[in-house]
Amino acid sequence: MPEISKKGQRMPASPIRKLTPFADKAKQEGKKVYHLNIGQPDIETPEGMLNAIKNIDFNIWAYTPSEGTLSYREKLAEYYNKLGYDITPQDIIVTAGGSEAITIALMTCLDEGDEIIIPEPFYANYNGFANQGGIVVKPILSYIENGFALPPISEFEKLITEKTKAIFICSPNNPTGYLYTREELEALKEICLKYDLYLFSDEAYREFCYDGRTFTSPMHLEGIDDNVIVLDTVSKRYSACGARLGCLITKNKSVWATALKFAQARLSPGMVEQIAGEAAVDTPDSYFEAVNAEYTARRDTLVNALNKMDGVYCTSPGGAFYIVARLPIDDADKFCQWLLESFTYQNQTVMLAPATGFYSTQGAGLNEVRLAYVLNVDDLKKAIQVLEEALKVYPGRA
Amino acid sequence: MPEISKKGQRMPASPIRKLTPFADKAKQEGKKVYHLNIGQPDIETPEGMLNAIKNIDFNIWAYTPSEGTLSYREKLAEYYNKLGYDITPQDIIVTAGGSEAITIALMTCLDEGDEIIIPEPFYANYNGFANQGGIVVKPILSYIENGFALPPISEFEKLITEKTKAIFICSPNNPTGYLYTREELEALKEICLKYDLYLFSDEAYREFCYDGRTFTSPMHLEGIDDNVIVLDTVSKRYSACGARLGCLITKNKSVWATALKFAQARLSPGMVEQIAGEAAVDTPDSYFEAVNAEYTARRDTLVNALNKMDGVYCTSPGGAFYIVARLPIDDADKFCQWLLESFTYQNQTVMLAPATGFYSTQGAGLNEVRLAYVLNVDDLKKAIQVLEEALKVYPGRA
Repeated sequence: MPEISKKGQRMPASPIRKLTPFADKAKQEGKKVYHLNIGQPDIETPEGMLNAIKNIDFNIWAYTPSEGTLSYREKLAEYYNKLGYDITPQDIIVTAGGSEAITIALMTCLDEGDEIIIPEPFYANYNGFANQGGIVVKPILSYIENGFALPPISEFEKLITEKTKAIFICSPNNPTGYLYTREELEALKEICLKYDLYLFSDEAYREFCYDGRTFTSPMHLEGIDDNVIVLDTVSKRYSACGARLGCLITKNKSVWATALKFAQARLSPGMVEQIAGEAAVDTPDSYFEAVNAEYTARRDTLVNALNKMDGVYCTSPGGAFYIVARLPIDDADKFCQWLLESFTYQNQTVMLAPATGFYSTQGAGLNEVRLAYVLNVDDLKKAIQVLEEALKVYPGRA
Repeated sequence: MPEISKKGQRMPASPIRKLTPFADKAKQEGKKVYHLNIGQPDIETPEGMLNAIKNIDFNIWAYTPSEGTLSYREKLAEYYNKLGYDITPQDIIVTAGGSEAITIALMTCLDEGDEIIIPEPFYANYNGFANQGGIVVKPILSYIENGFALPPISEFEKLITEKTKAIFICSPNNPTGYLYTREELEALKEICLKYDLYLFSDEAYREFCYDGRTFTSPMHLEGIDDNVIVLDTVSKRYSACGARLGCLITKNKSVWATALKFAQARLSPGMVEQIAGEAAVDTPDSYFEAVNAEYTARRDTLVNALNKMDGVYCTSPGGAFYIVARLPIDDADKFCQWLLESFTYQNQTVMLAPATGFYSTQGAGLNEVRLAYVLNVDDLKKAIQVLEEALKVYPGRA
């Protein structure tokens, strides 16, 4: 039998999905499982977006240009320019979700053996994307005590070598919910300019900023146009994860032209998605206001309840819909599996994501879990009660 | 300004799309351009598939499992088993078009520096996909004189080294239209088993076999299950190129499990596409009969007309909707650009794909072009007349 590639052997399994078989088994046994493990929102997709799908009026489901249709890119530019990005449709390449935007950007800018610095914990699949290109992830620890704020720039400088090509950030952050301040972004800008590094900005959660906070993108900064690549997706913005519609934005013409060659190899983004995405830009503000009010209520419910539990700690994140909490446990992987396999409270249990999967540093996050508040407040309260009861009896309580 | 990766610098531009700016200019100048350059069929997508899109009834456009929904994979298995593949839904991973199926299969089986043997001319984007993974393409010339039949197996053996991991075929072939016989596939099987190689089978054009010929897949062969990976797409089968819906099929459980890890990193294939793809499997036979009758008429029109032209030669391919023809010209790239830039006949011109882009061997295919017969017979006749007139006056006529 021919061998699997070394790259394939090294490829990490998804930390979010590796517990799925245990969850399936729990459900088969009749347990109610509350899913706080995955970023699939329960929020409805905007009606205008769904109607655009229902109203398609073509007879041939044809390729679109590799960079996306002009009309969708024009509409996207309108959306981004309202946020102050000052871009044109020629700065955008439409992709199959944020995932493809990230893989194309990495291939465009980094070769095998090149290094990328990422504050951790970070979105676990960055490890997988880096592995695909033989790229080396250099993590920098951020800490729960200050809500996972940007580590000091001096920590970045310690890691920079001749192989370092980029810094990768995600704000509001998955998994921590931390929202970078303008000052933090300015500090990142200075180091990127000093060492001639790309600044990758994953902005999947841009719309989800709470308590009156404002989102800042590297696109808002002066004098760093050639370094910045924004990776975006409609997945969370419009609760349209299954659309697989994202984009890459850069004002660096060489990066754009090279990224286009990768986009041409895979021919085209989806046509129906782009039609729906174009309609989605006209989603009324009231939709986002309602969604943000809902998420704020959920976050507050979760943060308050967690901090009332004995030995549990988390801060109140400024954005996204995730919280990383510290629990009084020996090992998050074991605990999360135990919840599904061995625990039940009133025939219910809860599924969490072990934070270990979001750290690249071995042994980090052992007593932390990520909770996605993608359930309504009532269900969330039930799930929290289950967690509280579980912590009382978990054999590995620390 | 940070540098583009070496991989990005090496990335080939699409040979099909590189002439697009010249075509755009010709159209701006008011010329009618007949597109024989690209595999975008003018055939209508089956009504059942389009209706499935219009009839979606979900409120949340959600992620699906990374391997695709069970119901779509069940339906696909039904389709493939009618063809005699003897597979289960657990052998399938649903992908974003055939393109993603190919990139995932390559990453699963080949590392940087590994070699893959591909009979040429071949689908140009294989070069791009190989470059993404640092994989070395070893081409084997096939020849227009015998309709681009499989080269002798001895030619494959000459190329096999310790680095050789796979043979990659496409039947019916893009760009040649050649349909491999069962005997040719059996010969490939023997060499794959002898040297423990993967056999990648791109079957995008499976439905398009003419003159009563039968399609054979490596999936039909005995005793080679662990070596075979089928790459497929709905793009051509249902004229749904813009769906970006494909799949990878393998009975090798290690390959499947590793491919799933790559699929998990990008989370999910598109949800609406899978709903439409499920409906598409019920497309009535009459649809394919009508399409094949139409393509046969077009092929015959094109082949007859081409062979009547002075100095032009092609064979009549058994499948797909492409023909590679030899023309009395000095350089196909120059000729195809000249057609758009400098030639006009009754204010019309024709866009062809230079065959050079489908060869990996430097200098091969210089006097060959690929013609896609994706226009109706009337337009095809007009396009052929334009080509005939062009050849009479082309300054680089050889």
